[in-house]
Amino acid sequence: MVIVGGGFGGLNAARALARASVQITLIDRRNHHLFQPLLYQVATAALNPSDIAIPIRRILRHQENVEVLLAEARAVDLTAQTVVLDDGTSVSYDHLIVATGARHSYFGREAWMPFAPGLKSIGDALEIRRRVLSAFELAEREKDPVRREAWLTFVVVGAGPTGVELSGALCEIAQHSLTRDFRHINPAEARVILLEGSDRVLPPYTPATSERARRQLTRLGVDVRTGQRVTSVDANGVAVGSERIATRTVLWAAGVAGSGFGRALGAPLDRAGRVPVNPDLSIADHPDVFVIGDLANVVQDGAPVPAVAPAAVQEARHAARNVLRAIRREPTLPFRYKHKGSLATIGRSAAVAELGNLKLSGPPAWLAWLLLHLLFLVGFRNRVIVLFQWAWSFVSFDRGARLITGPLRRESDESRAERRSA
Amino acid sequence: MVIVGGGFGGLNAARALARASVQITLIDRRNHHLFQPLLYQVATAALNPSDIAIPIRRILRHQENVEVLLAEARAVDLTAQTVVLDDGTSVSYDHLIVATGARHSYFGREAWMPFAPGLKSIGDALEIRRRVLSAFELAEREKDPVRREAWLTFVVVGAGPTGVELSGALCEIAQHSLTRDFRHINPAEARVILLEGSDRVLPPYTPATSERARRQLTRLGVDVRTGQRVTSVDANGVAVGSERIATRTVLWAAGVAGSGFGRALGAPLDRAGRVPVNPDLSIADHPDVFVIGDLANVVQDGAPVPAVAPAAVQEARHAARNVLRAIRREPTLPFRYKHKGSLATIGRSAAVAELGNLKLSGPPAWLAWLLLHLLFLVGFRNRVIVLFQWAWSFVSFDRGARLITGPLRRESDESRAERRSA
Repeated sequence: MVIVGGGFGGLNAARALARASVQITLIDRRNHHLFQPLLYQVATAALNPSDIAIPIRRILRHQENVEVLLAEARAVDLTAQTVVLDDGTSVSYDHLIVATGARHSYFGREAWMPFAPGLKSIGDALEIRRRVLSAFELAEREKDPVRREAWLTFVVVGAGPTGVELSGALCEIAQHSLTRDFRHINPAEARVILLEGSDRVLPPYTPATSERARRQLTRLGVDVRTGQRVTSVDANGVAVGSERIATRTVLWAAGVAGSGFGRALGAPLDRAGRVPVNPDLSIADHPDVFVIGDLANVVQDGAPVPAVAPAAVQEARHAARNVLRAIRREPTLPFRYKHKGSLATIGRSAAVAELGNLKLSGPPAWLAWLLLHLLFLVGFRNRVIVLFQWAWSFVSFDRGARLITGPLRRESDESRAERRSA
Repeated sequence: MVIVGGGFGGLNAARALARASVQITLIDRRNHHLFQPLLYQVATAALNPSDIAIPIRRILRHQENVEVLLAEARAVDLTAQTVVLDDGTSVSYDHLIVATGARHSYFGREAWMPFAPGLKSIGDALEIRRRVLSAFELAEREKDPVRREAWLTFVVVGAGPTGVELSGALCEIAQHSLTRDFRHINPAEARVILLEGSDRVLPPYTPATSERARRQLTRLGVDVRTGQRVTSVDANGVAVGSERIATRTVLWAAGVAGSGFGRALGAPLDRAGRVPVNPDLSIADHPDVFVIGDLANVVQDGAPVPAVAPAAVQEARHAARNVLRAIRREPTLPFRYKHKGSLATIGRSAAVAELGNLKLSGPPAWLAWLLLHLLFLVGFRNRVIVLFQWAWSFVSFDRGARLITGPLRRESDESRAERRSA
């Protein structure tokens, strides 16, 4: 059988089949599994890429029935039961699990993309890190106060978990990590503005939790603006209705859509580009093809199952079980998602959690978040290193990965910016 | 005064002036000081970039008389006493210390560069890491045995310290870190060939030490070939005289030259692009301009001072002292390099050292190397993390930073390769 994608879904599907007598080919276009819940910490210079990214073939090295293929799956031939790869070769399957995840969505405004990078891959995280750190450097060199203020204004679009994490971390960088490092600017004067289209932050949470999150964000220094829809984004700022915010750094955390590979399955997609699945997670007319994780649109009791890591893991295990049942010619079973709770971190000692009836906020929620994320991080080595870096950052307010590895601003950013300001 | 460059030379010059009543502007085009002696460990996936690279302004944050400017110095106007920056602005100096270091030299064969990257910056190291890790991945996918062998052949050109370190580390990756991870190839079958033009490895050492180094390299599995001059390098291999070695991965550790900024000083350069300096480290006709580190050609007792970190540090402190003497209108003093010893690491428990009359080899030399490098690494946090990663690697034979972050092979590599093989 073939699994496409080595994220939470694909990796857990492969692991769930460790003892089964099936031969698995796991295809991913990257060599690493990414622990995405901590990706914002790479983007904000707190962690290194390899602290949260591990080679997939390393994780599965001892699982003899898996072969890991570093390749980009381009298409699926549902009739011939093959997955076509980037080099034109193809891999046959009897059963296929597709877990290619999600990508950013700019709601049809793809032109905003170069000015407002999103956060999905290590590459994205390093690009955000480069932009954020460069902005302070360029502010230090800028003599015009208006331009300097634009360099010191950071706008995060979307107040879901990623937007909340990013804006909280940006405040910490500005107010703690960089103080005393500059001579002409005071990094603590940087403004971090969090824009959210709906009327509260963390919309999937209860209104009371949203309110607690907003209070904690405000206390960290984030300028939270709800009910604000962005109407344009360019190299020099964003427009929200008739208001214009001058900023050189916009981060996009507003929308996700199913990965482009969903289209390869030929099935009709929902509005967010996700693949609607049957109750057993297979797709219409193709009981041999399962779709799981952020790419799948799973409806349960009339509502969609949330696109979070625990859901992907549960779906992965269920799809693996259904593959085995199908091989044994037993009927497949419908999937049921068990929601165990939600956790969102905001910043230093700041977080919110909803675990059943238990609602936590502040340091207890933050500790719960910290422990759970350490626990689920793959690999002893990574846990030790991440724990040490967290402890170090907590004590010193420092950030260990403050590297600008690319150019200060890429030519394309600059020339676009110049053209507009000219 | 102005210091150009934030490497060992520039950083130590700034630090040596910490208590002096001078106002210093330190200019570097990168935001980080790089601990270059460990750069090969980033290239070979053992360490993360930020373990050995620290923001310059972070290191100097408490030194009130320094302003760090992230900018590229383009030219020097020796008459007007200004350094011209990339954005056209300029910075005035009364005294100038230039410490812009070295870059690779392909001895006039710059066309080889795309096929044989050198190792000077974090970017170089990540490029080498990408090529090395990708080579194993592409070998795994390659069905043709001849092409597969080319992917599994690694050639290092130049057996100075960097070439020796790289080839030793490549053998460890192949024989220990990757075993069991692949299904179609045996990484331990990879060949690592170290080519050296002169008749022994580590030419700056004594012949006896060179011989010990060669024996340790051979034991690790490196195919050491001395007296072999490379006559051509392309995407499919290297030629050594009439012999052709089919390889897809060539690393360049053969030559260095003074950084391009040397030309900005107007003075005549030596054959390696370095700036000849007076005994007090100033340049001809300009007692207000000092050149130190790898960019300087310092002659002592008829022989050039070696281009190593300790020499750069000593020169930095001396130049700082001479700047202060010049300010006080005292005559400057001639520089004398004190050679404290040489250490080169080869691999796991393998190294050579010459400390005065004491010649070490094997585990004692390796331990000495390890301790000294930890000691000189800036910052407590980095020391702890590097120490932990080394301990982990030593016990587990694993490498913690096995990430491919760019494309498998860049378009340009591939299209070049295709064109040639077509």
